[in-house]
Amino acid sequence: MPAMENKDNISHVQFDHARKERLGMPEAVFCEGKDSTILCALLREFSRSTGKSILFTRLKPEIFYAFPKEIQQGVNYHELSRTAFAFALEPHKSGKKVAVVSAGSADAQTAWEAARTLEYLGVRHTMFEDCGVAGLWRIQKALPAIREHDIVIAAAGLDGALISVLGGLIRQPLLAVPTSVGYGMAKQGESALTSMLISCAPGISVFNIDNGFGAACAAVRILNMFC
Amino acid sequence: MPAMENKDNISHVQFDHARKERLGMPEAVFCEGKDSTILCALLREFSRSTGKSILFTRLKPEIFYAFPKEIQQGVNYHELSRTAFAFALEPHKSGKKVAVVSAGSADAQTAWEAARTLEYLGVRHTMFEDCGVAGLWRIQKALPAIREHDIVIAAAGLDGALISVLGGLIRQPLLAVPTSVGYGMAKQGESALTSMLISCAPGISVFNIDNGFGAACAAVRILNMFC
Amino acid sequence: MPAMENKDNISHVQFDHARKERLGMPEAVFCEGKDSTILCALLREFSRSTGKSILFTRLKPEIFYAFPKEIQQGVNYHELSRTAFAFALEPHKSGKKVAVVSAGSADAQTAWEAARTLEYLGVRHTMFEDCGVAGLWRIQKALPAIREHDIVIAAAGLDGALISVLGGLIRQPLLAVPTSVGYGMAKQGESALTSMLISCAPGISVFNIDNGFGAACAAVRILNMFC
Amino acid sequence: MPAMENKDNISHVQFDHARKERLGMPEAVFCEGKDSTILCALLREFSRSTGKSILFTRLKPEIFYAFPKEIQQGVNYHELSRTAFAFALEPHKSGKKVAVVSAGSADAQTAWEAARTLEYLGVRHTMFEDCGVAGLWRIQKALPAIREHDIVIAAAGLDGALISVLGGLIRQPLLAVPTSVGYGMAKQGESALTSMLISCAPGISVFNIDNGFGAACAAVRILNMFC
Amino acid sequence: MPAMENKDNISHVQFDHARKERLGMPEAVFCEGKDSTILCALLREFSRSTGKSILFTRLKPEIFYAFPKEIQQGVNYHELSRTAFAFALEPHKSGKKVAVVSAGSADAQTAWEAARTLEYLGVRHTMFEDCGVAGLWRIQKALPAIREHDIVIAAAGLDGALISVLGGLIRQPLLAVPTSVGYGMAKQGESALTSMLISCAPGISVFNIDNGFGAACAAVRILNMFC
Amino acid sequence: MPAMENKDNISHVQFDHARKERLGMPEAVFCEGKDSTILCALLREFSRSTGKSILFTRLKPEIFYAFPKEIQQGVNYHELSRTAFAFALEPHKSGKKVAVVSAGSADAQTAWEAARTLEYLGVRHTMFEDCGVAGLWRIQKALPAIREHDIVIAAAGLDGALISVLGGLIRQPLLAVPTSVGYGMAKQGESALTSMLISCAPGISVFNIDNGFGAACAAVRILNMFC
Amino acid sequence: MPAMENKDNISHVQFDHARKERLGMPEAVFCEGKDSTILCALLREFSRSTGKSILFTRLKPEIFYAFPKEIQQGVNYHELSRTAFAFALEPHKSGKKVAVVSAGSADAQTAWEAARTLEYLGVRHTMFEDCGVAGLWRIQKALPAIREHDIVIAAAGLDGALISVLGGLIRQPLLAVPTSVGYGMAKQGESALTSMLISCAPGISVFNIDNGFGAACAAVRILNMFC
Amino acid sequence: MPAMENKDNISHVQFDHARKERLGMPEAVFCEGKDSTILCALLREFSRSTGKSILFTRLKPEIFYAFPKEIQQGVNYHELSRTAFAFALEPHKSGKKVAVVSAGSADAQTAWEAARTLEYLGVRHTMFEDCGVAGLWRIQKALPAIREHDIVIAAAGLDGALISVLGGLIRQPLLAVPTSVGYGMAKQGESALTSMLISCAPGISVFNIDNGFGAACAAVRILNMFC
Repeated sequence: MPAMENKDNISHVQFDHARKERLGMPEAVFCEGKDSTILCALLREFSRSTGKSILFTRLKPEIFYAFPKEIQQGVNYHELSRTAFAFALEPHKSGKKVAVVSAGSADAQTAWEAARTLEYLGVRHTMFEDCGVAGLWRIQKALPAIREHDIVIAAAGLDGALISVLGGLIRQPLLAVPTSVGYGMAKQGESALTSMLISCAPGISVFNIDNGFGAACAAVRILNMFC
Repeated sequence: MPAMENKDNISHVQFDHARKERLGMPEAVFCEGKDSTILCALLREFSRSTGKSILFTRLKPEIFYAFPKEIQQGVNYHELSRTAFAFALEPHKSGKKVAVVSAGSADAQTAWEAARTLEYLGVRHTMFEDCGVAGLWRIQKALPAIREHDIVIAAAGLDGALISVLGGLIRQPLLAVPTSVGYGMAKQGESALTSMLISCAPGISVFNIDNGFGAACAAVRILNMFC
Repeated sequence: MPAMENKDNISHVQFDHARKERLGMPEAVFCEGKDSTILCALLREFSRSTGKSILFTRLKPEIFYAFPKEIQQGVNYHELSRTAFAFALEPHKSGKKVAVVSAGSADAQTAWEAARTLEYLGVRHTMFEDCGVAGLWRIQKALPAIREHDIVIAAAGLDGALISVLGGLIRQPLLAVPTSVGYGMAKQGESALTSMLISCAPGISVFNIDNGFGAACAAVRILNMFC
Repeated sequence: MPAMENKDNISHVQFDHARKERLGMPEAVFCEGKDSTILCALLREFSRSTGKSILFTRLKPEIFYAFPKEIQQGVNYHELSRTAFAFALEPHKSGKKVAVVSAGSADAQTAWEAARTLEYLGVRHTMFEDCGVAGLWRIQKALPAIREHDIVIAAAGLDGALISVLGGLIRQPLLAVPTSVGYGMAKQGESALTSMLISCAPGISVFNIDNGFGAACAAVRILNMFC
Repeated sequence: MPAMENKDNISHVQFDHARKERLGMPEAVFCEGKDSTILCALLREFSRSTGKSILFTRLKPEIFYAFPKEIQQGVNYHELSRTAFAFALEPHKSGKKVAVVSAGSADAQTAWEAARTLEYLGVRHTMFEDCGVAGLWRIQKALPAIREHDIVIAAAGLDGALISVLGGLIRQPLLAVPTSVGYGMAKQGESALTSMLISCAPGISVFNIDNGFGAACAAVRILNMFC
Repeated sequence: MPAMENKDNISHVQFDHARKERLGMPEAVFCEGKDSTILCALLREFSRSTGKSILFTRLKPEIFYAFPKEIQQGVNYHELSRTAFAFALEPHKSGKKVAVVSAGSADAQTAWEAARTLEYLGVRHTMFEDCGVAGLWRIQKALPAIREHDIVIAAAGLDGALISVLGGLIRQPLLAVPTSVGYGMAKQGESALTSMLISCAPGISVFNIDNGFGAACAAVRILNMFC
Repeated sequence: MPAMENKDNISHVQFDHARKERLGMPEAVFCEGKDSTILCALLREFSRSTGKSILFTRLKPEIFYAFPKEIQQGVNYHELSRTAFAFALEPHKSGKKVAVVSAGSADAQTAWEAARTLEYLGVRHTMFEDCGVAGLWRIQKALPAIREHDIVIAAAGLDGALISVLGGLIRQPLLAVPTSVGYGMAKQGESALTSMLISCAPGISVFNIDNGFGAACAAVRILNMFC
Repeated sequence: MPAMENKDNISHVQFDHARKERLGMPEAVFCEGKDSTILCALLREFSRSTGKSILFTRLKPEIFYAFPKEIQQGVNYHELSRTAFAFALEPHKSGKKVAVVSAGSADAQTAWEAARTLEYLGVRHTMFEDCGVAGLWRIQKALPAIREHDIVIAAAGLDGALISVLGGLIRQPLLAVPTSVGYGMAKQGESALTSMLISCAPGISVFNIDNGFGAACAAVRILNMFC
């Protein structure tokens, strides 16, 4: 614990490298609001050339693409989900599969944040997009394929009605992520969040607004039971 | 306009008897919070013996059943919906039919307030109860019968997901009433209300929490187009 | 349902082309927050040259005017309402007329979104602007002309008092849209919304804040009854 | 300032008897939540027999009528407004008149609290009840009489639309009191309050929910200008 | 789907008996707000004498103990958790164990609702009470035993700090239930809920306030993976 | 009432020129959110050269200073308050004086909006700045001079404590304007607003957040009593 | 850690008896919402006859006075503050004095909860009641005596203006407790709380609504520095 | 008190230079939202060359670095905390030490605002960063060093769980500052704030969101007891 008295210092992160062993989950860097210089240094440290990997979330394209080319080339960046990592971890030993379902195209960013976290963690997964229930045939068409997965992560904004419908149709763990889609009374995702918390379909797990990363971590906590 | 200066008086209601002609809707008395003595006097005035009828809403059983027997016998009281009237108006000239759909048994009070208002106004209607989407087969089973109606009023609490599903399945006017069902983040119906306002199914009309009366009046505004 | 496992893809929209038949309403693209490249591709696909038409809402001028000229020329863009379409649908068979009323000049964007949606859907309509009740003579002057219409859509911000006054003066269906006008306790339209939901004028249908599109769709649900 | 160290004492009120001289307003006792024994002692102290008068507000009937008969007879109690005082002060020297207007019968309690406060303070006033704008003819009928007054206090719940309409029709000071009438999104008067604060009619003074007493005091601050 | 036109009927529940097969979870009756007569009939129907079992939640002691003795004797009632059932289902085939952890004695009702739901569903579980982190030694003392379980359900009110601490110490699925404990800014559990949603410990599943039943159902969804 | 059917038009303002006669207050243009082109046209119409005057509020410097020089020279613009007018109206006949008091330097914009509105309306007034009660000596020093005025307008942000202190020290009408000063729990002025509404000093009139214009109009309503 | 599997048990409290040594503060029992039987058992355990003492807070008179007489006689109960203990701890070694100041008589319950907690902890203190700033002379009169104390705890509801005024007049630690006094926009103390948090007087410590106990504990944390 | 009638003036600050003597705290300038020209003038006035010092808070880098070089050189600016002063005051006579603890790297800005305020006031202090409880070992490792300090200031965002854990481990005064870190339900720090207010660890003082300055001032109020 470095203590410093009455003098300036550069704020630095204490990495929790034991987290992988303790929780079965690696450390991640939440980039939003972090200084560009610090992010650049971290990307350099956790890159293909150093052979160390870590997950970066909420890394905006305008920040990433302003970095030097060799930094950019050192990591696998995915623009839509705003995630980056040098290389994925080894395939997860559970061998289980996760379905990632989204209600509308505007929910893609969150759904892909979940998918990319799973990819980084070596978990097999499939993406099912645009399954919102305003056109009920969409989710019904995708249902047989979804049911072949072991866990379902679903991202939805607005009224979040997809969650209740899905919750009544599948027996799998259902991890629901509200998204900050919409305007007016959508209230940046609060309405979707409360809808999911009070869904009458039983046993639905809920996460913070736009928190695809969290849902993927919860999936891994479940998959850890098989290792 | 009776004006009184510096002296006490008994607060009285100015009935808007011209409302029926102006709006095609009769005056109604919202009983909640009103003094029991005043309600008793009004029930006596608008009863079978006087031949005058008016709609009473939110009239609690414990208040109604404490009135003298002849007052009780003078009106048609419906306990679940908490409504009363001496006799229904003449059948509405439009001849159209309204479906009243509810998500769960806890939404019955609001759904029946809508149904009873329609009954009072002489509008044909059918009740479809317990159609919540946590068990999707319920609404699917009821759908063909619902589609034979001209307007649909739907009452739902919690996440209000029934509204979005229904809104994507029917072409009729859909009048959605959130109910104050649930606990915790249900927030006395606020979550259901916002869900309905931001539903991705297009063209859904929304009303105040538990306001079955209002939805029935909106249905009558539509039916007035056929007279 | 295209499923993809552990790999990147371009998020794409599943158009619900059956919606027109199922609901009597065409598909629309809500442009806010969507990627400029995707919007450009969609405008190209649904343009005069392709002979396909679809409604675009919330399409900001700064985005639209940055598109190539031939894209711009391929659609009918209306700046104030931020809507675009290649060409309007055939005149609606109902032959009915809708009045669109706004309270103040700041409510124009929402009122015109409703008007343009009606135009796209081939519904006859008239615009009545600046009818706010702080100067009561305005609405009183417009009233005779408004009453000649079959349905009334009204957009108002701030206290939304126009809605209650109008609701007590007309028998027609009244579809009320709160707008995000004002500052301080106007709370981006929430105060107008709650005012409309609890209006003492009976039977008023309410929509999400600034949702002129939704009110127009609700009008079409009603007009569908005449086809 | 009586100070006591480490021992129990009976909480007592420090009356601000200089308030009448300093502010032109007498001390008042807000009874809600106060202990019944203390209220009884205060009523005894400020009664006809002692010749001292003070205003009691929010004094519930069930509490007042449980007091000994001689206490009840010592004061002038008004049940609807829940106010009491031994005798009114001398007629206010300004000689001006205040109109007290209410929107619906449910706003009567607040309107009468204002009226009774004026009565206690010796201010001439007239009550105009049931002037809500859902039936616009009501306020229009009362308007000529209202305009003969110098100040207008108006109490309204729900959407508070009466205030905007009235504010656009009169030149007088308009003191607006929201009331906790209604259910659902009425939110115990918060919606009425915000509606009044953002009314587009200019120069409307707003008070706390149900605070008829406060509006009457504000009227007296104005009338003090004439003494 | 029984449809009834323009006449009164007794609201009844459509039981979703296929839910057990479809979701691996039985139907439950949420008793709060339900009519006492209906509850009594349901308890009679699902009792030891009929050999049918169902889970009743939120069944208040004052209601239960007012039922006839033979009704009371027909079910297994647990006062603290307010749950009842005739008999538990067969032991769950997964053979896994769930730890139920509570922060303070005031969280017991919710924790026991989860435990009793597990009991009804035949799931092995252990209760760990009073593990709040204000005295950190409590949770540290219980930790080794908790870690021997496969899934952890934790109920906490106030600041919900137990969840973040626990989330950083265990690899198991952590199902967090906020409780409506506390006063002032505890806001009936909303503060605990938001704390859990934004916990910096990754992968925590959150449920509605006081919803012990929901967390137990989510545990069963996970355990279904082992059958 | 110009009605237009199915065609585009330029949104225009219906000026309420009778307002001066009806309410004793002139029309004003709230510039925030209005199109720059429209504002420019209005400034040209109401300028020294045309001899017509109107009040413009919330006119940002960056917008005003981008207008052509001759437009700028045609009006009297005040940057801090963001107000403009061609020339002030004739001195108000009442001859009364208004004190405008502000708590801190951050409240200046609102206080000066009130002062400039008074100036436009020809009302005599004095500005008292930086009188916040964290240093109680400030308000005490200014008090004798404030008391020589007939009406007091006070603008304060944060806790708004100045209002309660002032309300207990003066007999004059006190018109309180909360300001959107501060961060965190200041909530853009909502906390100041609620503090003023529930102040224990009696008879305080409250206005919308930052609404200096409204308070000045309310002052004029009072001064109209002297004409 | 008593673990129990699949069976009922009586929920019991794990007392944190080491807290006195660790934090310098004894364990306390928050009685609100706790079962009457459990409270009775605890009062018996911590009473004069057993020679063990603990602090009970929020113990309502109607509950306390329903206990057997010998239980009542075993503790020192203070009705206004709703606190009880068998006997106070030894005088605090710091020898410092705390002033407890309240704004109005309605804040007495909270102020006395603080005072009684100090009494239990053996801390010298003085009560200053009814010092609200609507009559500024009250606090000015008490100020010299308050300044002779080392720490100031102040309880205020409504606008909490006393805190800002006091914070600008004294150098001592100022521990501010908002109270749930008032109606309407007082919002059960939330407005007072936010006022205190954003007070422009610097360095004010704030506690939960009505939490007199917490403020007294914070005072003890400070006094611990002198031991 | 400079009074000006009906004419423009430059808003200026009334410095409260007596504050140092009255409260033991110097005046500070909160720069956010203040005009750049005024800030520049103030920095020139309170600089090394003039020998006068004052604390500037919330002074953004982009504003500071745009000032003339000689202005920049005249003060000690600290970018992360956004604070500036010409030179620190003399060492505080108490000789006591304050620990400043932060939960995560995102809380650094607030923690350093507290530290820099202490530095300006001449108070000895140590910074302990990145002690969040998701990895409990961090705070446990730092604990022995923290305990050697007299007062603890702790800044935390998100769920603020660090505060409850720390509050149960130390006897010192604990001054807790919520930070506006996070997204979704973090609500710009409101969730952290409420968590701290309702922490079950007793006697925790809470400050406005991001208000490191306020916590440092509260520490000085405590340290004043030793002078």
